[in-house]
Amino acid sequence: MQDQPTEAFTLDLDRQRRCGFPEVVYGEGKDPDTLTKIIAQLRDNETDVLVTRMDGDKAERLAVPYPDGRYNPIARTWRLDVAVPPANQADTGQVTIVTAGTSDVPVAEEARETLRWMRIEPQMVHDVGVAGPHRLPAHLDVLRDVDAVVVVAGMEGALPSIVGGYVDCPVIAVPTSVGYGASLGGVTALLGMINSCAANVTVVNIDAGFKGGYIAGMIARRCHRSSSSP
Amino acid sequence: MQDQPTEAFTLDLDRQRRCGFPEVVYGEGKDPDTLTKIIAQLRDNETDVLVTRMDGDKAERLAVPYPDGRYNPIARTWRLDVAVPPANQADTGQVTIVTAGTSDVPVAEEARETLRWMRIEPQMVHDVGVAGPHRLPAHLDVLRDVDAVVVVAGMEGALPSIVGGYVDCPVIAVPTSVGYGASLGGVTALLGMINSCAANVTVVNIDAGFKGGYIAGMIARRCHRSSSSP
Amino acid sequence: MQDQPTEAFTLDLDRQRRCGFPEVVYGEGKDPDTLTKIIAQLRDNETDVLVTRMDGDKAERLAVPYPDGRYNPIARTWRLDVAVPPANQADTGQVTIVTAGTSDVPVAEEARETLRWMRIEPQMVHDVGVAGPHRLPAHLDVLRDVDAVVVVAGMEGALPSIVGGYVDCPVIAVPTSVGYGASLGGVTALLGMINSCAANVTVVNIDAGFKGGYIAGMIARRCHRSSSSP
Amino acid sequence: MQDQPTEAFTLDLDRQRRCGFPEVVYGEGKDPDTLTKIIAQLRDNETDVLVTRMDGDKAERLAVPYPDGRYNPIARTWRLDVAVPPANQADTGQVTIVTAGTSDVPVAEEARETLRWMRIEPQMVHDVGVAGPHRLPAHLDVLRDVDAVVVVAGMEGALPSIVGGYVDCPVIAVPTSVGYGASLGGVTALLGMINSCAANVTVVNIDAGFKGGYIAGMIARRCHRSSSSP
Amino acid sequence: MQDQPTEAFTLDLDRQRRCGFPEVVYGEGKDPDTLTKIIAQLRDNETDVLVTRMDGDKAERLAVPYPDGRYNPIARTWRLDVAVPPANQADTGQVTIVTAGTSDVPVAEEARETLRWMRIEPQMVHDVGVAGPHRLPAHLDVLRDVDAVVVVAGMEGALPSIVGGYVDCPVIAVPTSVGYGASLGGVTALLGMINSCAANVTVVNIDAGFKGGYIAGMIARRCHRSSSSP
Amino acid sequence: MQDQPTEAFTLDLDRQRRCGFPEVVYGEGKDPDTLTKIIAQLRDNETDVLVTRMDGDKAERLAVPYPDGRYNPIARTWRLDVAVPPANQADTGQVTIVTAGTSDVPVAEEARETLRWMRIEPQMVHDVGVAGPHRLPAHLDVLRDVDAVVVVAGMEGALPSIVGGYVDCPVIAVPTSVGYGASLGGVTALLGMINSCAANVTVVNIDAGFKGGYIAGMIARRCHRSSSSP
Amino acid sequence: MQDQPTEAFTLDLDRQRRCGFPEVVYGEGKDPDTLTKIIAQLRDNETDVLVTRMDGDKAERLAVPYPDGRYNPIARTWRLDVAVPPANQADTGQVTIVTAGTSDVPVAEEARETLRWMRIEPQMVHDVGVAGPHRLPAHLDVLRDVDAVVVVAGMEGALPSIVGGYVDCPVIAVPTSVGYGASLGGVTALLGMINSCAANVTVVNIDAGFKGGYIAGMIARRCHRSSSSP
Amino acid sequence: MQDQPTEAFTLDLDRQRRCGFPEVVYGEGKDPDTLTKIIAQLRDNETDVLVTRMDGDKAERLAVPYPDGRYNPIARTWRLDVAVPPANQADTGQVTIVTAGTSDVPVAEEARETLRWMRIEPQMVHDVGVAGPHRLPAHLDVLRDVDAVVVVAGMEGALPSIVGGYVDCPVIAVPTSVGYGASLGGVTALLGMINSCAANVTVVNIDAGFKGGYIAGMIARRCHRSSSSP
Repeated sequence: MQDQPTEAFTLDLDRQRRCGFPEVVYGEGKDPDTLTKIIAQLRDNETDVLVTRMDGDKAERLAVPYPDGRYNPIARTWRLDVAVPPANQADTGQVTIVTAGTSDVPVAEEARETLRWMRIEPQMVHDVGVAGPHRLPAHLDVLRDVDAVVVVAGMEGALPSIVGGYVDCPVIAVPTSVGYGASLGGVTALLGMINSCAANVTVVNIDAGFKGGYIAGMIARRCHRSSSSP
Repeated sequence: MQDQPTEAFTLDLDRQRRCGFPEVVYGEGKDPDTLTKIIAQLRDNETDVLVTRMDGDKAERLAVPYPDGRYNPIARTWRLDVAVPPANQADTGQVTIVTAGTSDVPVAEEARETLRWMRIEPQMVHDVGVAGPHRLPAHLDVLRDVDAVVVVAGMEGALPSIVGGYVDCPVIAVPTSVGYGASLGGVTALLGMINSCAANVTVVNIDAGFKGGYIAGMIARRCHRSSSSP
Repeated sequence: MQDQPTEAFTLDLDRQRRCGFPEVVYGEGKDPDTLTKIIAQLRDNETDVLVTRMDGDKAERLAVPYPDGRYNPIARTWRLDVAVPPANQADTGQVTIVTAGTSDVPVAEEARETLRWMRIEPQMVHDVGVAGPHRLPAHLDVLRDVDAVVVVAGMEGALPSIVGGYVDCPVIAVPTSVGYGASLGGVTALLGMINSCAANVTVVNIDAGFKGGYIAGMIARRCHRSSSSP
Repeated sequence: MQDQPTEAFTLDLDRQRRCGFPEVVYGEGKDPDTLTKIIAQLRDNETDVLVTRMDGDKAERLAVPYPDGRYNPIARTWRLDVAVPPANQADTGQVTIVTAGTSDVPVAEEARETLRWMRIEPQMVHDVGVAGPHRLPAHLDVLRDVDAVVVVAGMEGALPSIVGGYVDCPVIAVPTSVGYGASLGGVTALLGMINSCAANVTVVNIDAGFKGGYIAGMIARRCHRSSSSP
Repeated sequence: MQDQPTEAFTLDLDRQRRCGFPEVVYGEGKDPDTLTKIIAQLRDNETDVLVTRMDGDKAERLAVPYPDGRYNPIARTWRLDVAVPPANQADTGQVTIVTAGTSDVPVAEEARETLRWMRIEPQMVHDVGVAGPHRLPAHLDVLRDVDAVVVVAGMEGALPSIVGGYVDCPVIAVPTSVGYGASLGGVTALLGMINSCAANVTVVNIDAGFKGGYIAGMIARRCHRSSSSP
Repeated sequence: MQDQPTEAFTLDLDRQRRCGFPEVVYGEGKDPDTLTKIIAQLRDNETDVLVTRMDGDKAERLAVPYPDGRYNPIARTWRLDVAVPPANQADTGQVTIVTAGTSDVPVAEEARETLRWMRIEPQMVHDVGVAGPHRLPAHLDVLRDVDAVVVVAGMEGALPSIVGGYVDCPVIAVPTSVGYGASLGGVTALLGMINSCAANVTVVNIDAGFKGGYIAGMIARRCHRSSSSP
Repeated sequence: MQDQPTEAFTLDLDRQRRCGFPEVVYGEGKDPDTLTKIIAQLRDNETDVLVTRMDGDKAERLAVPYPDGRYNPIARTWRLDVAVPPANQADTGQVTIVTAGTSDVPVAEEARETLRWMRIEPQMVHDVGVAGPHRLPAHLDVLRDVDAVVVVAGMEGALPSIVGGYVDCPVIAVPTSVGYGASLGGVTALLGMINSCAANVTVVNIDAGFKGGYIAGMIARRCHRSSSSP
Repeated sequence: MQDQPTEAFTLDLDRQRRCGFPEVVYGEGKDPDTLTKIIAQLRDNETDVLVTRMDGDKAERLAVPYPDGRYNPIARTWRLDVAVPPANQADTGQVTIVTAGTSDVPVAEEARETLRWMRIEPQMVHDVGVAGPHRLPAHLDVLRDVDAVVVVAGMEGALPSIVGGYVDCPVIAVPTSVGYGASLGGVTALLGMINSCAANVTVVNIDAGFKGGYIAGMIARRCHRSSSSP
């Protein structure tokens, strides 16, 4: 004999009005049927869909009911564009995403997909960690004159401080669990970023590519909105 | 017999060009003579001065050479306006600072003085912690339609998540060392904020009122600059 | 050649008299044969049986000797009603269980099954975490006028503080290991709840749905007993 | 020149209606003038006053405007009875407070004063820590047949588990910072209590005598209210 | 092409003379061939063999060359008696091993096998954790009048303090990784035991059944040696 | 108006019968009057008195009523011999106390005074830490042929492992808070000792000189008792 | 539909000129195709190749395009000599690698392969941990008169301090994750080594055999270069 | 009555022969009389004296018997040159000390005094932390072509990684306790440095200026010795 729990999710369909962007679906631990139902509700509400932390086999299952969904296997994200895109794509703001090493790329890709879902196409700068100090200055052109920079780094997490010293916009630091031994699953990188001596560095959770991209996108869109609204 | 160390500071006078704002002086551990010299260099460079973490007796000493300096004893900050203020003060952007409890006020004041130094006058909302759930909604008018919100909270650090659910701008969460026992000197609040379920919450160091204000001001000015520059 | 240990369990069959409720069986690490023996002892002692942390395959094995046993696959609990139910079910007290997100449901279900074993049917409120601040007030009717509220939350663990501000009964906070990165397997939620600024919040172990339900049930039954005994 | 912050407290005068008891004043860091103003507001609202974590010199200052205030120098609490006491004092419920050692007494006294402010007079059992195993059973008469037990203990924090095995009511465990070395300022006691193998043990913050007493009093009054309201 | 490391072990065959007992073999990570070689060296040196942390399949492999070896699958230990046993078995000293719960039995069995290898047969007392306070006193006869007691406990690790209050010999506390959530893999039990308020409690590593048994056996044999040598 | 707590200590005067030695008085936080009363009770019970963690000014106060009390200002202990000493002092067992550096001496002195109170005069070996590897072997004569060795060490806490490799008796390791930076107030030494690769090393709390001496004395006396009782 | 990330690695081919040695490839998480491309770039740049943390199956895949590559399955490293070896091999400096136990050998082998890649053949001393204090002095001849010693140890990590007391060159301490319970995955060994009382001990990350070997080799080659360059 | 401990220090006068340099005196907790005695022994042994962590008032006391002693009040060190200096000062090797900020200077001065005691005069580069990325490259001339670099940094501890990417010698990273909040007294800087992505970075204890200087000096002298000895 089995007792069953009742339906356990309630979508916050009002969030776009309140917070500027709709609710995002955290894919981990949700089965394909639940995901299918949630996506249907969001689509019917005419909001763009972003699912994070989704495995490839679930993506295959979703491809049947939603053939237009886009799965990024590195980021493990799934997007479905539903709303009408903004008229002037160039006005959505500028974001650059920087990684310290190649192992940080999956988290950076999650940030990129989040920004795409916000209708912003970020620029990517990869593998410019601090041990090769000549690599970062080579990319200063795509770091300056943007609205926000997302810096993704594991191990000692030093890269955001360096980037922070070069730019005049907020740096959203995303620590990653990349490393071994005393990296403590990313806690070392997180602590390092929180203690950054650069005044414009602010921090989100370990491996939180979504959050890093979201905050950068929110800043970019706000700056854009200000510029075009009057 | 005593050996003396050589002069040990070098001001980064180029920072305003590179990062948008000049260098800030961390007052802790610097004696009044060193502070006087540093302030002179900054003033001669025609940049506004902000000293943080400065005791009242140092402020009294600085009052002699710099009678126009403004000391905030709650924030423990000292400012000296040197540069010509912007023509249109109303265009500098909007920031609101929120505290969970009265013990968080000193950190909030440090954020406020930092914003003033950036020529932004923030709005203050005090003592609206989560245990009195009806208090925050009473202030929604000054939380919405701003460029960034700084939320200052100790103990469990829950307030940024709540604020994040109401607004469509970035929330800069500043954990404080307010609390006792398992508050672990602010680490509990820091961890709570880093794990915030609200997507627009980003975090700085414990008691880092300066940093919270600085990042909020950077966002506000960027949005403002975008709107007025064309 | 193998040495074998002696029988290693001793049931505390006197606990009901001493503590008001019989011993509960922690299923993890116990094989089906041992469980079968323990359940037989409890049943022969005419006490209701609750097994926690039990996998589905063990439940299938137990279905043969105990066809009346009830397995909840979400909660991973197994119950067997043996004792005569109380005459007036409505007098057993009122408990509400609240979850912050859908991932917290298994822990909430363990609390629910524990309350059912105590002959109390709790009300469930799901997915009302703090990032959607309008969701909780919609359920105030089932939060007020109960004897205790169990709040199950992971990540920053802020929900119990909010609930605590609305109700005039104890809030039993159950942190969960839901989250990633700096959630530290639930330690962040635990610390946050321990530091709750709401005076009526008290805390049990991470993922301890059983304990949360048990203490709430104990309070409810005590209030009920008081009211009916004279 | 000094900038001054605005008034930074807002009393939650509605709390008694919402949560059953009025707001408590955390005395640490508040100067006598602020305390005097807050107390006046509460008194004018006809609610009983409890100030915690208050030094003796502040108590002396408050004795002038409030000669009826009662200061407990061990608990470092200050109370002022304003409301009319309940008609039948005996009906307020029963609470017992237990300490492991004499160094835990100040925290226990804070719990006691909190209960007195709730109009409940608890029974005290002192210095019955686990190293003297015959001491606790000598007090079983005042541990059984109460509505809640508050157990205050530092070092390894084992006492709540023992008490939990003897009683049929909730045990509110209050870890203290008593100890040295690896007691880690009370964190060891807190962790031990959270992992208690007794099902009826729930935990509050380190040295949180107020919270331990408050939750016990809330349970006691609820049981009492239930019994008398019909 | 593969480079191979050189032979990487050197047995300390002199240890019995220096420390009273021969070297013990830590089985984890050693393949059957290496174990076979090590055992041969020890046997040729006429010393008793004890291998700890050995899986069952390795035990099966060792059964061929060493049919007299004894494997305990609960303890995961393997013993081979080589030396001539002492003439008077009764004079080897008295040790009792106590467990808090059934999940602690594997660690207790490792302690038992270690004592057997030292030619001491301990008495076992199982499942007498603190939540059932009447269970321990029932066994006081096998706790008193022994040379040392080994107490094996997980979760809050409170049992050694209780046992310590009853006996006049050293209590060797062995924390186990039994528990969940904030048990932190046994660190909570370790910290609790280190902070024990009982003066005769001393502590070894988490799950270190071998060490607990070894130190108890060393005490017992020393007392025995003293009594018989003159 | 002040409320006063009731008398808050109860001596465990039965402990000598149960545990072999009387209760020890923890001096920290007890005022001279309370200490005087406690000492009087113990003396009237004809038990030897040991007070630990007592400041010199309290010792001066106690010198008036108890001129025979002995204060050790390094150990911060106070003793009063009351009971009749054992007839044959040489039979009390042998203990050696070893320190790694001179900063560890106060903790070692506390262990020494504890042993003297147990009527055992230990041998002292100072400043033989591991960085001077030739120093320890020079003292092997007083390390071998004793009943127990107490090793007191801070910083990395490596000395007990070395001593453990030379002797055939238990090594009671006492970590100290000596060190700086990542010594973490003694936690590093504690962790190192708990992980000692020497099988005969067991550990007590940081700076717990009393406990280290007590357990060593208990072992020594037990071995002695065994040898002389028949 | 799948979005693909862009090429995510950029080799630092200038590093040999800047830092004396070329870049090393961290194999974990890189697939064989990526590794093949990276190795080709390095070989074309005429630099020796070292890949660390590579599984055996990847090594098999690389054996096809690079039959001269050397795989060490214990160290999990892969080397390819490309550059012309130095004329006088004897002049490359002297390094000795020491392990505490056999479980530390894989990390020591990684250090050895790193030194070989630097064209230095180290001497190996295995299984001389501190619990067998006579073992280390037997190897003093290969510890003295070298340029650097790498000491690899887990558990309490005491060996570097002992070695440090015998030699007049830097000791590079490599903590390992060998151990259980409170070894905390190597953090205990790391903390112990950082707190070493020997002045010549310096520390790298847990299990960082590569780094330990690299720094030792850098010291050795610098001493060698100095001696031969004039 | 007072018991006194015996003399508790033994100088390791053989260390210079064994380790290349004599013993250094840790001044903390030693009174002026003890320091005077220790210095006399060292001077009589014709070895140079270095005392670390010594307050200014002790230095004044030592100025009477040792007028040639040199006290550095920033470093809190005291030196006395006793031995004959090396003939060719230029051949002693080259070391550069770098600080991230002015607050790190005291630790850097301790390193400098240690090198002076080793008869090496280091070059100092101050206040070149990562937030001003253009500052470090301006000093590359004194960073390259040295035998070792000591990098002293607090907060996030990122500077050693940057320096490591520019130089071809070992970088000895010294974390400092400079910072606040989540700098955790230097633990964050320590963890960051241990996880440095630069292969030539190795780490000593927090605030361990002495150790940083000592290891750098040992490398420098070894390289020098090699070059001049033939």
